[in-house]
Amino acid sequence: MIVSIIGLGLIGGSMALDMKRRHFCDQIWGVDNNPLHAELALENNLVDRIMTLDSAIADSNLIVISIPVDATLGVLQYVLDRIKPWQTVMDLGSTKSEIVKHVANHPNRKYYIPAHPMAGTEFSGPLAAVANLYDGKITILCNTELVAKNALDLAKRVFTFLNSRLVFMDAVEHDIHAAYISHISHITSFSLALTVIDKEKDIESIFNLAGGGFASTVRLANSSAAMWAPIFLQNKENLLTVLNTYVEKMLDFKKAIESDDKEGLISLMKEANQVHDFLRTRNLNSSLWKLN
Amino acid sequence: MIVSIIGLGLIGGSMALDMKRRHFCDQIWGVDNNPLHAELALENNLVDRIMTLDSAIADSNLIVISIPVDATLGVLQYVLDRIKPWQTVMDLGSTKSEIVKHVANHPNRKYYIPAHPMAGTEFSGPLAAVANLYDGKITILCNTELVAKNALDLAKRVFTFLNSRLVFMDAVEHDIHAAYISHISHITSFSLALTVIDKEKDIESIFNLAGGGFASTVRLANSSAAMWAPIFLQNKENLLTVLNTYVEKMLDFKKAIESDDKEGLISLMKEANQVHDFLRTRNLNSSLWKLN
Repeated sequence: MIVSIIGLGLIGGSMALDMKRRHFCDQIWGVDNNPLHAELALENNLVDRIMTLDSAIADSNLIVISIPVDATLGVLQYVLDRIKPWQTVMDLGSTKSEIVKHVANHPNRKYYIPAHPMAGTEFSGPLAAVANLYDGKITILCNTELVAKNALDLAKRVFTFLNSRLVFMDAVEHDIHAAYISHISHITSFSLALTVIDKEKDIESIFNLAGGGFASTVRLANSSAAMWAPIFLQNKENLLTVLNTYVEKMLDFKKAIESDDKEGLISLMKEANQVHDFLRTRNLNSSLWKLN
Repeated sequence: MIVSIIGLGLIGGSMALDMKRRHFCDQIWGVDNNPLHAELALENNLVDRIMTLDSAIADSNLIVISIPVDATLGVLQYVLDRIKPWQTVMDLGSTKSEIVKHVANHPNRKYYIPAHPMAGTEFSGPLAAVANLYDGKITILCNTELVAKNALDLAKRVFTFLNSRLVFMDAVEHDIHAAYISHISHITSFSLALTVIDKEKDIESIFNLAGGGFASTVRLANSSAAMWAPIFLQNKENLLTVLNTYVEKMLDFKKAIESDDKEGLISLMKEANQVHDFLRTRNLNSSLWKLN
């Protein structure tokens, strides 16, 4: 079996790395429109060969698209236009609705599995690729009822092989939840970084003081702008809903602080504390997990 | 030597625990106005004896105040009114300016060290007390130039004994930086929790999906409301400044998303990315750290 990974960054590069060193298939090929990234991926043994997109499409059993979600639209269409029934295609983007909609009526739609491995870090590019990135992480597969059995089986086999935990979900639902779980956290982290940078005179002292807590809060603010801008725009409606509610909640805190309303603050925080009752329930009752 | 800890919660209880099991002194006494907390602290071997506040003040070499920062004002005054020159007092609150101002003209001011060990977790109460909580954490001592040498030496000895790293800072500066590093992160975490709770219908799916990332972002939203409300109010001016800038930055993202401004989003994120250049510089040049 030959697997081709299009886009040799953190997510694609790490998948290539684990497939290669754990011998998932006979050959791992890499495709990247950045020649430096392609060279680094080869030098660092993420892939066996660097190929052109067309050669990769011609001979791969599995084609994995792992590039920014706006670029995914055109590349996925291009790949689906060319594959045969023995081939399977996946994308690994953080948004799913717009991509799924874009190829909804494609005659080869059934060979395509929309996947979202929730395994990102704040780093990017082939040098960010690490072994075991997918271990224990959740991967969401969307609208699997539209996928041919063989293609779906191969996709499941990939993520099981990578020790990722599978969850199944409609693409529209996926995007709503991704807005809460992942996308908004990036915006708040970027905003914290910008807030600190705005007061440049204090930056040195802030970092002298900051322990692991601050560093971990601004960790996501190191994320790739080129990758996240298209995600935010493809998930625009959901993200704006979350963002509006979030800003409202922050303004509730602001109002309570401005008016020295200790009881109001306590009541906001006690309500927020409830989120951990849900987390605890979830942890105690793992049958709630829609695993595989 | 006898050490008394007033307030046997996470911070006070953990200090008592490490002092006791590592034999910092002859006796550790505990004071707590919640009889259940006092009993739990004794049962769990955090302290040798439970005492009344007055008995503790009468015979302790070191009196550590570890209660909500609004209650600290009165208790610190009460303790300073009663101590002798052979006794030392510390508080461990997350705000420092108002507390320091409150006792600025007290005749026993020089026996008091304002301390802030940045060692909190989202848990509270004596059952949250854990061994080694202070290990490797930063503790800020404020306005040490106002403190008698013996008292300051004892305070330094305590935190060195607990393997905490000392940083020295003016109380006013401390509160500015604490707003950025610690207080705002709690407000954003509480706000995220409230945002999720607002959409209750989705909570189950969100938690099914959420990996470690979401859990760690809302972790701080489990923090004690009774402890944090007074911190927010004592650090009101600084926190409102940070909060206003923070909301402005989030609204910048909102505007860019609303208007499909990919370049604007990329430019905001690239600016935010710079925060990590500062973190890197700090890590590379540890001589910037004002250690001990």
